[in-house]
Amino acid sequence: MSIPATDPCCDGQPGMLSVEQAVGQLLAQVQAITESERVELSTAAGRVLARDLASPIDVPGFDNSAMDGYALHSRDLDGARVTGLPVSQRITAGSVGTALQPGSAARIFTGAPLPEGADTVVMQELCRLEDDQVVIDAAAAPGTNIRPRGNDITAGSIVLAHGTRLRAAHLGLAASVGIGTLEVVRQPRVAVLATGDELVEPGRPLPPGRIYNSNRYQLQALLQAQGCEVIDLGGVADTFGATREALQQAAARADMVMTTGGVSVGEEDHVKAALEDIGELTLWRVRMKPGKPLAFGHIGDTPFMGLPGNPVSVFVTFLLFARPCLQTLQGCGESEPHRYPVRSGFNYQAKGRREYVRVRLEAEVAMKYPRQGSDVLSSVAWADGLVEIAEDTRVHTGDMVSFLPFSEWAR
Amino acid sequence: MSIPATDPCCDGQPGMLSVEQAVGQLLAQVQAITESERVELSTAAGRVLARDLASPIDVPGFDNSAMDGYALHSRDLDGARVTGLPVSQRITAGSVGTALQPGSAARIFTGAPLPEGADTVVMQELCRLEDDQVVIDAAAAPGTNIRPRGNDITAGSIVLAHGTRLRAAHLGLAASVGIGTLEVVRQPRVAVLATGDELVEPGRPLPPGRIYNSNRYQLQALLQAQGCEVIDLGGVADTFGATREALQQAAARADMVMTTGGVSVGEEDHVKAALEDIGELTLWRVRMKPGKPLAFGHIGDTPFMGLPGNPVSVFVTFLLFARPCLQTLQGCGESEPHRYPVRSGFNYQAKGRREYVRVRLEAEVAMKYPRQGSDVLSSVAWADGLVEIAEDTRVHTGDMVSFLPFSEWAR
Repeated sequence: MSIPATDPCCDGQPGMLSVEQAVGQLLAQVQAITESERVELSTAAGRVLARDLASPIDVPGFDNSAMDGYALHSRDLDGARVTGLPVSQRITAGSVGTALQPGSAARIFTGAPLPEGADTVVMQELCRLEDDQVVIDAAAAPGTNIRPRGNDITAGSIVLAHGTRLRAAHLGLAASVGIGTLEVVRQPRVAVLATGDELVEPGRPLPPGRIYNSNRYQLQALLQAQGCEVIDLGGVADTFGATREALQQAAARADMVMTTGGVSVGEEDHVKAALEDIGELTLWRVRMKPGKPLAFGHIGDTPFMGLPGNPVSVFVTFLLFARPCLQTLQGCGESEPHRYPVRSGFNYQAKGRREYVRVRLEAEVAMKYPRQGSDVLSSVAWADGLVEIAEDTRVHTGDMVSFLPFSEWAR
Repeated sequence: MSIPATDPCCDGQPGMLSVEQAVGQLLAQVQAITESERVELSTAAGRVLARDLASPIDVPGFDNSAMDGYALHSRDLDGARVTGLPVSQRITAGSVGTALQPGSAARIFTGAPLPEGADTVVMQELCRLEDDQVVIDAAAAPGTNIRPRGNDITAGSIVLAHGTRLRAAHLGLAASVGIGTLEVVRQPRVAVLATGDELVEPGRPLPPGRIYNSNRYQLQALLQAQGCEVIDLGGVADTFGATREALQQAAARADMVMTTGGVSVGEEDHVKAALEDIGELTLWRVRMKPGKPLAFGHIGDTPFMGLPGNPVSVFVTFLLFARPCLQTLQGCGESEPHRYPVRSGFNYQAKGRREYVRVRLEAEVAMKYPRQGSDVLSSVAWADGLVEIAEDTRVHTGDMVSFLPFSEWAR
């Protein structure tokens, strides 16, 4: 038996990367996907816009009424005194009126185009009808209750920037300028392999000493939430040859290859051996907890990321390291997840590494899941976010801490 | 011409509902869907768990090593002095060792089962091999670096509660206890109709006085993000008979019918007339901005919700009113979206209604979109959340305000 390569990961040790350093190095090695495809608005949610979208039209396309009421010219209202004006026409949304004669008013509804010759709309609650005349008990300045043409958008202006992750309002906005299809970035294809001799698929009997494969399902859902198409390499036989062959084939058709488990300091692993044979691999120690060991490399031009084996570490390292890479792959201009100041409901001592504590906000106080081990996936399932605690920092109950809601990561 | 029913919605007027009152009344009229279906883990993300999930197994299923190192009995370590022990076996994750002879050690890897007779694991960084013996330069208390059986989960305990919206970690957790399929609530079917004579579908030419239909696409994406299946009634002819027929058929197969535009005070509208004919309809004035008018009713047993016509009002009323109904339909135990205290980057005066201002967080300060009109959908597309300002409240730059990230609503 040979002595394993000991690589003491002492806390705070020089040579370890900070989270920011690791992310910076990762992003420098990932290229944005340049292929795009055109999709209908109804299937574009969650995709990333490939090109700036300019509006072909003004919005609104015409001066229109912001209220149900009466359109008229302000000079026909005599100060704040009651005025009677004949009602010459009725303009509903979607219809077009005729030019307004001086000294007359038009019944008008919200969104209907202002008739030529009118410069104001009086809301119906300030009006009453007497015979065929509208009696108005108010003054009105020019422009009141009118949405001017081009107020929201002028023709030719950029309404959605490339790199936008498309949400409901973006799709509504594209529709509002008449655009029915959008050019979006091709979805990244990520090949996934959860490694480990001990893994058994759920639904099957569990032999002694073995555990169920949870990372495969967790990672698949995490990738899909980031807009990726998953290539599941789950069925690879556990030999060097089969692993090497599967990784090489996956790299040829995937934008990224990702594994969980195995690829870490001092471990014997087919993925590691295969990668060293067909590509390159660097083992990183990141000054964080959970999730310290991280492997990065490439097979040909395809980036490779080896996440740790413990499921909590998979979750945290995915969000901190894989997500920015996947955003970059998609040319996505999304910013960092927001951190919010909240009150701590617990005491904590972070030692030489930055810690990510699984918490749930209860009455605006961050409550810690009691067991924070990196194997305790219940902590993530229970939590609704992470509290980030800097290296060598003591937190007391009642202190303000930095909260990262899980919902922020899925933006 | 008849005088329209004037219904003066003066700010702060008695008779208007608060947001909370309106939500309370809505939820009292929505019944949870009782049908469920069984799905594979790989398609369960975003669905709602229909029944409590109990673990059939302990997790971990056996005492195992938390480190790569050497398993031994603590009595064989002589205080903190260097000790040499013969290495009798090698236990990798997934394999099972034999009982440890007193005075010997086993090479062991992370996740591998602790052999009988061992009560501690010493991490490899504290060990060296000399001849066939492992030399250890440390003491070790019983239980060190051991994850005990059942530490995360005990057999029979509930690991996921019914009503849980399933995220990646929940799926990983189900897999980790050997569960490969989950019983989830049937997706709500929501029939949607965007009304208005003025609406033109994107991609077609825009006649004078008309506008493009944005609500159809926005609402579809909002509903899908809440886990709903959309029944698009977009193609209904704009007559009373066709609308009545379409609504009646939709109500028979949908869990909820939702419209935008039209169904509001004093407006003439086929949807309103049809609903009054085949169901019941109440018009509500909610003390909020944007989005004051809201219609609620039913067609037979199927709840009906009429959102306003302006796209910003659709967005805000959807999140405040439709989302809680859809959660209740799904039996979903999700709590209210969190609100976070942030600093305001703007001055604002809310009058008699609660206001929802579209903002973007920039360097942790909430910046207001300049145009806050309820027709300006750009404001929602630009923003990443809402600042909620109470009735009759003045906000100054630098004040702390309550921020609702859009990401929270999609949890």
